[in-house]
Amino acid sequence: MKTRFTERFQLKYPIACAPMALIAGGVLAGAVSRAGGLGLIGGGYGDPEWIAQEHANAQGAPVGGGLITWMIEQNPSILDAALSHQPRAFMLSFGDPRPHAPKVKAAGAALICQVQRLHQLEQALEAGADVIVAQSSEAGGHGMANRATITFIPEVADILAQRAPDTLLLAAGGVADGRGLAAVLALGADGALVGSRLWASRESLAHEASKARSVHLTGEDTDRSIVFDVLREKHWPPGYTFRALKNTMTERWSGREDELLAVAEQERETYRAAMAAHDYTIGHSPVGQATGLIRDIPTAEEILERMDGQAADVLKRLGRPI
Amino acid sequence: MKTRFTERFQLKYPIACAPMALIAGGVLAGAVSRAGGLGLIGGGYGDPEWIAQEHANAQGAPVGGGLITWMIEQNPSILDAALSHQPRAFMLSFGDPRPHAPKVKAAGAALICQVQRLHQLEQALEAGADVIVAQSSEAGGHGMANRATITFIPEVADILAQRAPDTLLLAAGGVADGRGLAAVLALGADGALVGSRLWASRESLAHEASKARSVHLTGEDTDRSIVFDVLREKHWPPGYTFRALKNTMTERWSGREDELLAVAEQERETYRAAMAAHDYTIGHSPVGQATGLIRDIPTAEEILERMDGQAADVLKRLGRPI
Repeated sequence: MKTRFTERFQLKYPIACAPMALIAGGVLAGAVSRAGGLGLIGGGYGDPEWIAQEHANAQGAPVGGGLITWMIEQNPSILDAALSHQPRAFMLSFGDPRPHAPKVKAAGAALICQVQRLHQLEQALEAGADVIVAQSSEAGGHGMANRATITFIPEVADILAQRAPDTLLLAAGGVADGRGLAAVLALGADGALVGSRLWASRESLAHEASKARSVHLTGEDTDRSIVFDVLREKHWPPGYTFRALKNTMTERWSGREDELLAVAEQERETYRAAMAAHDYTIGHSPVGQATGLIRDIPTAEEILERMDGQAADVLKRLGRPI
Repeated sequence: MKTRFTERFQLKYPIACAPMALIAGGVLAGAVSRAGGLGLIGGGYGDPEWIAQEHANAQGAPVGGGLITWMIEQNPSILDAALSHQPRAFMLSFGDPRPHAPKVKAAGAALICQVQRLHQLEQALEAGADVIVAQSSEAGGHGMANRATITFIPEVADILAQRAPDTLLLAAGGVADGRGLAAVLALGADGALVGSRLWASRESLAHEASKARSVHLTGEDTDRSIVFDVLREKHWPPGYTFRALKNTMTERWSGREDELLAVAEQERETYRAAMAAHDYTIGHSPVGQATGLIRDIPTAEEILERMDGQAADVLKRLGRPI
């Protein structure tokens, strides 16, 4: 599949690997980039040592990176540290990108801005984003609840066509196979930012027991809430929630976070013990609604090949003159 | 566009008009059927006189119908009344279709079952559905919150391919233009059931002031809650919620329905007065996230022509060998 995204970034596939915090390390991002996609190392909250180690683990593959934007506000040095590894692209997610865009551009990285709302799109355009990632509620991990890919992508595409026609658009949320990739291209995206499907790859840093759960569930078995942020003492700005596979923790506390706060210390102990023991019936697995389309744990390269091949087949079949 | 749905139902377009309660009357359903789609009269809660009048208003066009399934349980005669008009297809939504399927089939109507969850799909297959409508959370009006089109459609398509390969699949939720139609075909649907976009047509029974609001809003300006069910004293089974354009009523009460119940009588008076005055800053407009893609109020025929033409263009462009 050729799109403006593959041409601009000289890729084989119109697929970027979401910079999933502490999941998309150098091995995964490197594998995606070597296979012909765009791999992004998930710097997350911004531990410079982790980021340095994971750039080393990419072994020279042309990867990019990403950070949680509101963490940069708290500690600007993490952006300098991340950019010191000369990422080819850098994604700012969850916060106002405008104060940080000049540094990203000065470092020679393409600026990717992830948005969940239209007012964030305005900020991203003011920041001079080269690529917009429009992330919808289906996605795993952090995001927002309000939008779905089927309407968010064409709505953002219309705004970009009018206001910033050279800015590329990637869809994030629910794209896990070639049907989803074909669909978001039809909706007006130039490619997809893939999280869950690459989370469930051999190269991802997710624990095998966590990956194994995702293979057997349906798209109904996920939950979006702040339960795991409360348990991890992560203080996210209002509006952001976290989608994960349902388990005993979400069943007990999702929608009852106020009550959870009252017994948080005890539940945090339970949670930390479960994570240490790799018990994901209590600990979190940050997978989106795409879990219902995940049935195996292949290599990243195989995932990209399959997605692209299936998308091409679907579009060829549907586009045939009748 | 030709699909199994257009072939099986001898249609020009792979588009059905959602049987929106008291919105999709005979004029809208008739216009959709005459244009080459499948028009379904929205019998809703089941007023036999309204249904009879609207079948008359279809003026002989080959329309179908639909009812809220849990209402049939409360009053089985409404199904007999609706089927007496010899609908070519009949859609059962929101409840277990199995007890009612034999009557629909005996009346010679194709059985369409709308599902929001996978366990409902099991029931629909047991009922012998000819067509499954997989409705996701993006949709306007009643539905459920848990699924989005981008993953629900391929997941249902995979189950149908294995278990009931001759059963057709329509996507409902967020399809408002040709990009959305092309996307759901790529995801594995045989067509789309279109609600919001046809709600905002000239022939729909929605009030002009309500339609006018939908033209100026974005996809962020909708809310899914039970606020309007509480206000209308409609006692829906657990799990069902109602998506409508945000207004002062949803801003005040969405997520605070328990508190609303405490002052329900007073708020019901306010609501009823607003509806009588066609004030939709207080009254409900049952439109989905597609509102952000609605910019005008054309005829149903023009909507179908545009959607089909744009979908064909998009798919032709994407399917071109490179």
